[in-house]
Amino acid sequence: MIGRLAVIGVGLIGGSVAGGLKRAGRVGEVVGWGRTPANLQTALDRGLIDRAADSAAAAVAAADLVLLAAPVASIPPLLREISPALPAEATLTDVGSTKAWLLAQAQQVLPPAQFARFVPGHPIAGTEHAGAAAAQLDLFAGRTVILTPIEQTVPAALAGVRAMWQALGATVVEQSPAAHDQLLALTSHLPHVLSYALASTLEDGESPAALAPAIGGGLRDMTRIAGSDVRMWRDILLSNREAVERALTAYRRHLDALEAAVAAAEPARLEQLLAHGRALRRRLLEETE
Amino acid sequence: MIGRLAVIGVGLIGGSVAGGLKRAGRVGEVVGWGRTPANLQTALDRGLIDRAADSAAAAVAAADLVLLAAPVASIPPLLREISPALPAEATLTDVGSTKAWLLAQAQQVLPPAQFARFVPGHPIAGTEHAGAAAAQLDLFAGRTVILTPIEQTVPAALAGVRAMWQALGATVVEQSPAAHDQLLALTSHLPHVLSYALASTLEDGESPAALAPAIGGGLRDMTRIAGSDVRMWRDILLSNREAVERALTAYRRHLDALEAAVAAAEPARLEQLLAHGRALRRRLLEETE
Repeated sequence: MIGRLAVIGVGLIGGSVAGGLKRAGRVGEVVGWGRTPANLQTALDRGLIDRAADSAAAAVAAADLVLLAAPVASIPPLLREISPALPAEATLTDVGSTKAWLLAQAQQVLPPAQFARFVPGHPIAGTEHAGAAAAQLDLFAGRTVILTPIEQTVPAALAGVRAMWQALGATVVEQSPAAHDQLLALTSHLPHVLSYALASTLEDGESPAALAPAIGGGLRDMTRIAGSDVRMWRDILLSNREAVERALTAYRRHLDALEAAVAAAEPARLEQLLAHGRALRRRLLEETE
Repeated sequence: MIGRLAVIGVGLIGGSVAGGLKRAGRVGEVVGWGRTPANLQTALDRGLIDRAADSAAAAVAAADLVLLAAPVASIPPLLREISPALPAEATLTDVGSTKAWLLAQAQQVLPPAQFARFVPGHPIAGTEHAGAAAAQLDLFAGRTVILTPIEQTVPAALAGVRAMWQALGATVVEQSPAAHDQLLALTSHLPHVLSYALASTLEDGESPAALAPAIGGGLRDMTRIAGSDVRMWRDILLSNREAVERALTAYRRHLDALEAAVAAAEPARLEQLLAHGRALRRRLLEETE
């Protein structure tokens, strides 16, 4: 049970956590803060939060748990802002998509005692929609949350964050920050880059009216995540640059091979490459569905 | 009303056409043929066809309309096989994903009078699943079918094929074979290549067990079409090679730009590129949903 939860950034993720914990009866009071008054009002209207604070620092006063659910690049300045107002026993956690960069920033900004109570986290859930209006109380049911504690992390803080996600029906796993970043570069950051690149390629063809008849489910699926928030993804990609570049290099190797087999009109080679991709997809996705 | 329909290849597409026309009462009898006896039996069991023929040539005897719903590369030999058995007034059509290559092949294989009654078609519908078991009677409702008649095409044959698709609830548009191939390279063939390449990249990361926690909806969507039939896609890509290469070249321009902005850590440039892709996706897909 969490006495008071402060949610900094009451969007899709923050709003879903807050609303889910309230529905589960696992939190006494939820105080929310966000940059956009209209979005905070939506969160209040939907009952995701009990109260809206005037500032991030005001939101964390007397909080037991502080959830930073803002875009990853905005978290360091927020940490600096709330640090003086944090209760000594408050646990901090976040939901950002990259962890090593954020930890390095947090260590610079927070005093050691607060840094030791900061538990970096990343729920593998979400949609391309944003804001409190998109929040879903069961968004994390059956999903995975990756926590990346480090040596200094206070065990009680880690246990508290773990319990919060489990209360929402999620499975919690622990990884090192670097392992998380490498993994997500491959499974999430790379697919987003490809989706934005594919969406951009559409302009090189015909006009929208000419393309429309030929748009099928494949293209819709492949460009869905190019509908994601642009500034959020800019920050994710830049804060995990090296791992994203490694993933892109690996991807290009496979794209080059496929293109070469098409260009050289080598049916056997092309079939082998396609079959390889298909088998990997089956093994990875169908086994984990 | 079609008296007798012959369906060569009773898979996802052929089975869905046959079953849909039967349900709509728009066909007297459906005779099916396919390479796989078990699949033909499934089509019979599901009532998609009335009768299974022993050969493609036997299936087209006394047919008014012949639907070739086999992978595009297998259509020319099938045309050669059925040509001697075709009734003089029979209309031929297909559902292959590339049209210029197929038309050139058909012209070599068929006598002029039969070639003039061959109406190339391509329904923009389907799933990554294959076979009569995957057929859906409403697969074409609200979808687009592209027909690519040429100068020689007999108007009555074109009208018959158009009426068939309209009876299934589809919207029919006409394009030149080259325009179709260029368009589909961008909206379908390119996304398939990217999806297979992305799926292949997964092996460069961790083991499946290690990847599993980090697999979200984005990756699932982006690799769904890499579950498609490998030989079918081998043939599609090779039979539309030049247009696929043009689409890949266009795509690489956008991928390169995104990668360069990440590598150079240029937030403003990266945001601009992402926003461009997002806007194109919105314009194209949301307007045509």
